[in-house]
Amino acid sequence: MHLNLFVYPGGHHEAAWRHGSSDPDRLLDVGHYQDLARSAEAAAFDGVFFADGPSLADNVRYASRFRLEPFTWLSAIAAVTERIGLIATASTTYTEPYNLARLFASLDHLSRGRAGWNIVTTGAPQAAGNFGLDSHPVHAERYARAQDFLEAVTKLWDSWEDEALVADQRSGLFADTDRIHTVDHDGPLLKVRGPLNIPRSPQGRPVYVQAGSSEDGRAFAARHAEAVFTAHQTLGSGQDFYADIKKRAARLGRDPRQLLVLPGISPFIASTEAAARRLHEEFNELTQPEYSLQLLHRLLGVRLSQEELDGPVPRELIETDGERGNGSRFRLVLDIVEREQPTVRELLHRLAGARGHRVIAGTPEQVADQLQQWYEEGAADGFNVMPPWLPGGFDLFAEHVVPILRQRGLFRGEYSGRTLREHYGLPRPASRYAAPRGAAAAVPVA
Amino acid sequence: MHLNLFVYPGGHHEAAWRHGSSDPDRLLDVGHYQDLARSAEAAAFDGVFFADGPSLADNVRYASRFRLEPFTWLSAIAAVTERIGLIATASTTYTEPYNLARLFASLDHLSRGRAGWNIVTTGAPQAAGNFGLDSHPVHAERYARAQDFLEAVTKLWDSWEDEALVADQRSGLFADTDRIHTVDHDGPLLKVRGPLNIPRSPQGRPVYVQAGSSEDGRAFAARHAEAVFTAHQTLGSGQDFYADIKKRAARLGRDPRQLLVLPGISPFIASTEAAARRLHEEFNELTQPEYSLQLLHRLLGVRLSQEELDGPVPRELIETDGERGNGSRFRLVLDIVEREQPTVRELLHRLAGARGHRVIAGTPEQVADQLQQWYEEGAADGFNVMPPWLPGGFDLFAEHVVPILRQRGLFRGEYSGRTLREHYGLPRPASRYAAPRGAAAAVPVA
Ligand SMILES: Cc1cc2nc3c(=O)[nH]c(=O)nc-3n(C[C@H](O)[C@H](O)[C@H](O)COP(=O)(O)O)c2cc1C
Ligand SMILES: Cc1cc2nc3c(=O)[nH]c(=O)nc-3n(C[C@H](O)[C@H](O)[C@H](O)COP(=O)(O)O)c2cc1C
Repeated sequence: MHLNLFVYPGGHHEAAWRHGSSDPDRLLDVGHYQDLARSAEAAAFDGVFFADGPSLADNVRYASRFRLEPFTWLSAIAAVTERIGLIATASTTYTEPYNLARLFASLDHLSRGRAGWNIVTTGAPQAAGNFGLDSHPVHAERYARAQDFLEAVTKLWDSWEDEALVADQRSGLFADTDRIHTVDHDGPLLKVRGPLNIPRSPQGRPVYVQAGSSEDGRAFAARHAEAVFTAHQTLGSGQDFYADIKKRAARLGRDPRQLLVLPGISPFIASTEAAARRLHEEFNELTQPEYSLQLLHRLLGVRLSQEELDGPVPRELIETDGERGNGSRFRLVLDIVEREQPTVRELLHRLAGARGHRVIAGTPEQVADQLQQWYEEGAADGFNVMPPWLPGGFDLFAEHVVPILRQRGLFRGEYSGRTLREHYGLPRPASRYAAPRGAAAAVPVA
Repeated sequence: MHLNLFVYPGGHHEAAWRHGSSDPDRLLDVGHYQDLARSAEAAAFDGVFFADGPSLADNVRYASRFRLEPFTWLSAIAAVTERIGLIATASTTYTEPYNLARLFASLDHLSRGRAGWNIVTTGAPQAAGNFGLDSHPVHAERYARAQDFLEAVTKLWDSWEDEALVADQRSGLFADTDRIHTVDHDGPLLKVRGPLNIPRSPQGRPVYVQAGSSEDGRAFAARHAEAVFTAHQTLGSGQDFYADIKKRAARLGRDPRQLLVLPGISPFIASTEAAARRLHEEFNELTQPEYSLQLLHRLLGVRLSQEELDGPVPRELIETDGERGNGSRFRLVLDIVEREQPTVRELLHRLAGARGHRVIAGTPEQVADQLQQWYEEGAADGFNVMPPWLPGGFDLFAEHVVPILRQRGLFRGEYSGRTLREHYGLPRPASRYAAPRGAAAAVPVA
């Protein structure tokens, strides 16, 4: 079983920052995040994961919704850790391939092979205005660019063969330029000449993670991803997604074991189930309806008022077609509405936990049981652990749930590898430009 | 006197990596650079400085000319240091304002106020192909974008007032959105809506450093820069530049003391002058003419062969008009050619030291004398120290030259401040959106 710590300033519950166990003064303190990563490394977690997006959420008035920049933050974390993977979210819509390729190659070098890339197309339409665009490219356009972008950066990461950096003091050959290649990427949307100006990194390239679950998102993941982050409320939905994505990968000729499915899980843990539920309630009572109504408007396109909190969610006002209908998070919420027919307040509390990811409240055994069930019954190869609050919510998981998973033989007791690829059981890709081993050996390099 | 360590993989002499005192295995090892920064911090240097550019130099065959990505590298350095400034070069031609603003705001947060930005427009034309452009924008266009870019990012850094992050657990006010501002930058070339998604950083914004010395470069520096990095071969040229840039700043109504002039200096240090010269010779003998002839071609547009090494530099082949003639490095080299009438080999050795920056070979006293003279005779407020090789070339400077500068009362014995602004004696800028102190206090924040 694979486990990542999904880091969010304050924690994943929208009201975490208000809870007595939180220290708002540390939200911008890199030491706080370094401590978290150290704890996750002490628990032998596969990786820490940072979300990201190039805009400010308007509901920052009510919750800790600023954005730590992942590359700087993860580099500072790399400096104080040895083994844990470092997964940065970065957008293919609002960055340039050459710049992004450099950031990841450097992160992979300085961490000695621990970089992962959560490839997103950016959901928040307000990003457009920060880049001089009148409107956010539509879903299909974003995925078309993502495809082109991924090809371009993959070529850049391949552009230096492993043996290109020679640094032979005697002969004076610093880099064997016959093993450094222009890439001349000429795609439908992007042109990139190359080569990269950084030698090939320990993992060859970062681990490719993907977190879109729409039709386009799944097609992209099946083709390129090595791990998929996903949100599911029920075992059945998790199993369907798991079977679907693995089948798609197999159909493309890939080994489905090289595409890990990692649903999000946000656990409230206490020594009894009742206490865990009370804890969850305590957090929910700190939520602010203004915040969640804004979130709901963004997710469903329905603008509700505080007076409507105890009435049913007006299903008929939700627009299911158009651009919004393509988003997988929209589908997930619509599904809750249709399946459970919650009041508005109930729905808001469902989303408060982790914006649609699964929330479990229970004893350490109950949480472990759930993870085991999803793992053994074909819904997950592991999990993105999204502690409701930080660091306490993570510490409880590490101290009480991880030992149970170990006793049951489900999770490693210590690291066997050094790179994120090794933790995930993924091969190191060869450069597409490298001659086959035998042939290369025959060519004298001088 | 202010001192930065200008870090370059291997050192600034083009053949440094071949010298017996170099360890090529550490060129990509972040620990090597962390050690260097720790040494510079132990010597109470103002900052460490990383150059950068988004393309690969073709003469990487002969010298250590790959590029470490500054933000990731400096973040890893920030994690192991406390006081020293961290100056990253970044291009206004090949990045997006919103992304760059986030990287610097984060670096400034995680270092607690130590970020500086070396603002460059990128000289290397081959960068264009890495960004899908047919050609590199011309000098004037690049500076026009730099101007627009700087205004946009400055607004983004101002977009959160200092007091905007409230995080009041009781009232539930996380951020006072009345103190977070869209910037609606609508310049001739760039549009950026804002606000930034990161709270205002310790220094307000990074220290603005500029390294262009052409007419456009000087105009830009006089208007915006808080420190200027510059290359001069003679005291006279340094004095002229110093007087010019300070006068320009004063004419724009700025306090000229808030624009530091920091020429580059590459010192070969030994216990006797003769030994220092021999050391310099030793490095020059390791140079490879293929490398420098490529460099010369890039700088002057003249393609020479190895057969011509011992003849004069053919002045008549150098094109002085057109795009190249705008570059200040071109002027500097042309100046050496006209003043000294060197052979090609002599010119190559002049450039091998630090690509046109001033090389001194001498005893610690002689080096200190030179720095003192430039400092006292109106050519410098301090220096960018460019060790010919690393770490040894820096260690000699720190152990033998720094103590002399201290004895003479020219350089600090220890840090008095914590931020790069404090080291440089620069004020912390206020956000343009902040109401005057008195007024703000009168407005109740709910
Ligand atoms: C665990 C998880 C984390 C995500 N993190 C981000 C993120 O940090 N930034 C972002 O823009 N989108 C993020 N997303 C959203 C998706 O990447 C994707 O952009 C969105 O779901 C729309 O694509 P889709 O319709 O294919 O799902 C995340 C999704 C999941 C499941
Ligand atoms: C000390 C110093 C460091 C520089 N570092 C860089 C650099 O890292 N990247 C870059 O593109 N240009 C760098 N430059 C070049 C200038 O920023 C500028 O782009 C170039 O000189 C052309 O502009 P100009 O004609 O105004 O001088 C540097 C210049 C100096 C003096």
